[in-house]
Amino acid sequence: MPDLFVGVDVGGTSVKCALASADGHILREGSIPTESHEGPEAVLDRIAAFVQSLSDEVGRKPAAVGMGLPGLVDPHLGYTRYLPNLTTHWRDVPAADLLSKKLHCDVHLLNDARTATYGELIFGRGKSVNTMVFMAIGTGIGGGLVIDGKLRLGPLGAAGELGHQTIDPTGPLCGCGNHGCLETLASGTALAAEGIRLMLVGMAPALHDAVDGDPGKVTVEIMGQVADQDEPVRQAITHAGFYLAIGVSNMVVAVHPELVVIGGGVANLGELLLRPMREDIRARVGRLFPVDGIAIETSQLGSKAGVMGAIALASRGLPT
Amino acid sequence: MPDLFVGVDVGGTSVKCALASADGHILREGSIPTESHEGPEAVLDRIAAFVQSLSDEVGRKPAAVGMGLPGLVDPHLGYTRYLPNLTTHWRDVPAADLLSKKLHCDVHLLNDARTATYGELIFGRGKSVNTMVFMAIGTGIGGGLVIDGKLRLGPLGAAGELGHQTIDPTGPLCGCGNHGCLETLASGTALAAEGIRLMLVGMAPALHDAVDGDPGKVTVEIMGQVADQDEPVRQAITHAGFYLAIGVSNMVVAVHPELVVIGGGVANLGELLLRPMREDIRARVGRLFPVDGIAIETSQLGSKAGVMGAIALASRGLPT
Repeated sequence: MPDLFVGVDVGGTSVKCALASADGHILREGSIPTESHEGPEAVLDRIAAFVQSLSDEVGRKPAAVGMGLPGLVDPHLGYTRYLPNLTTHWRDVPAADLLSKKLHCDVHLLNDARTATYGELIFGRGKSVNTMVFMAIGTGIGGGLVIDGKLRLGPLGAAGELGHQTIDPTGPLCGCGNHGCLETLASGTALAAEGIRLMLVGMAPALHDAVDGDPGKVTVEIMGQVADQDEPVRQAITHAGFYLAIGVSNMVVAVHPELVVIGGGVANLGELLLRPMREDIRARVGRLFPVDGIAIETSQLGSKAGVMGAIALASRGLPT
Repeated sequence: MPDLFVGVDVGGTSVKCALASADGHILREGSIPTESHEGPEAVLDRIAAFVQSLSDEVGRKPAAVGMGLPGLVDPHLGYTRYLPNLTTHWRDVPAADLLSKKLHCDVHLLNDARTATYGELIFGRGKSVNTMVFMAIGTGIGGGLVIDGKLRLGPLGAAGELGHQTIDPTGPLCGCGNHGCLETLASGTALAAEGIRLMLVGMAPALHDAVDGDPGKVTVEIMGQVADQDEPVRQAITHAGFYLAIGVSNMVVAVHPELVVIGGGVANLGELLLRPMREDIRARVGRLFPVDGIAIETSQLGSKAGVMGAIALASRGLPT
């Protein structure tokens, strides 16, 4: 019987878990609410209990756990350093050790966007790829770089923070304290806020109808659905694509990847976002060197990239 | 007797050559004018004759040649693709083969900034370094990335074009056709142009005295000399440092290097440029992760980085 591995993807609102073999075949999966206000010990307790219940169903003990977490995580020491989207911020929590003691197996931690990159590398579009840029575009923008077939982590697991490139030094204030980071201009949050603005000034009647005029209901997904009726909404998506193209192009001139993968919720916009992005990237970089060999695609694993990356982390350990 | 290697560094105005052993000990060096209007064959003929005369002096035949060239160079095929600063642009010239036939030994080509990065990696500050960002700031801004001890080239030798990151989408027009590339905001050319502007509007009296009011004589070097008298000139240098700090920070968040090396003529400004840059980089990136371990230094090899990199290229071949 092949070994059983656990992938855990911790988000601000929910925690996804999956039990799978090393080749990514999923036996059980599910999710629980994060409830991060309870603090790390309680959250890890509930994760352990949920993993236990899933493995009881399968009737086998997991060999190792991989866990992606939103924020700065030291993957080499297994500590969370700062998770801004979880209520208590998990500063310097030895989360790998804590969970390991509860589940009696090895636990590996990694930043969630790097975990998703690992998933896409091992089980998704990156399978036979040498050099890949991954961008996870959702609430913020995370990322990961694969160079010479290896996910690049850096000494603190912080390499790949592609959403915190400065694209416009006079741009909007970022949560990190700088101005004009890519994620202030083109994250799902930024795009939804622009949709709300368009709706409030009366430029997006179809969007207004779709959400009953409620700003709290505006999402990127709904914006995508009304884009063929509300031309300004379509333009807002293209404009986000323009900034994303700059952020991607900056990475393309730096590492010249063969593959760029766009993941996260915003990737569900599909060709509506990708077509103008591809054109922009090819026009920008094409002035410097030929770009025919660079594929620009949405994530193959979609919303499962994180949990599949955590399976890769559990079964293969950190990239070396 | 150890093998003899030739390093050639081709610039817009002059070609530097050096004969050295594999450990970088230089036996002969010198330079000739480029005279690129004569076309590639004639330029390569004169380079070959000059190398021949230097090796005749030493009384030994070189084992291999490395050559850095300004622009897009395919190092794997040994072709120049487009050298914008040389008069005839050297489109698709098999320069490695041509020079090899003249000198009867192997010839390796590489973009000049990547060559300088290689020099700094093998013989300079990068000697025992794992991950390094190199920026050559002169007429334009070139660069190179060393990741896991290896100079990153990409399939066309074009990876590392760090001067063509977009830093301000509404910024000045770049030679590449895009707007607000880092080199439009912080190259030696951009900095000198700002010095000229300050002089012409009467805000840089010491600079005016130093160059007899002649815009054609304004250089970054002279600006550095008058910066303690002309406060606006000092501010112009700090402002270029602000943009350079953004460009470096974008690479730091992407690859988290242990060393950033600033080379090219502008690096001669030394601490006048580096002090504000270091502060900016640490403030920017420090909001995301600890940066204590990242050294930010000027090139150890200075103007010899290119020719020493070409020696590394001759003696070690392309990084694999």
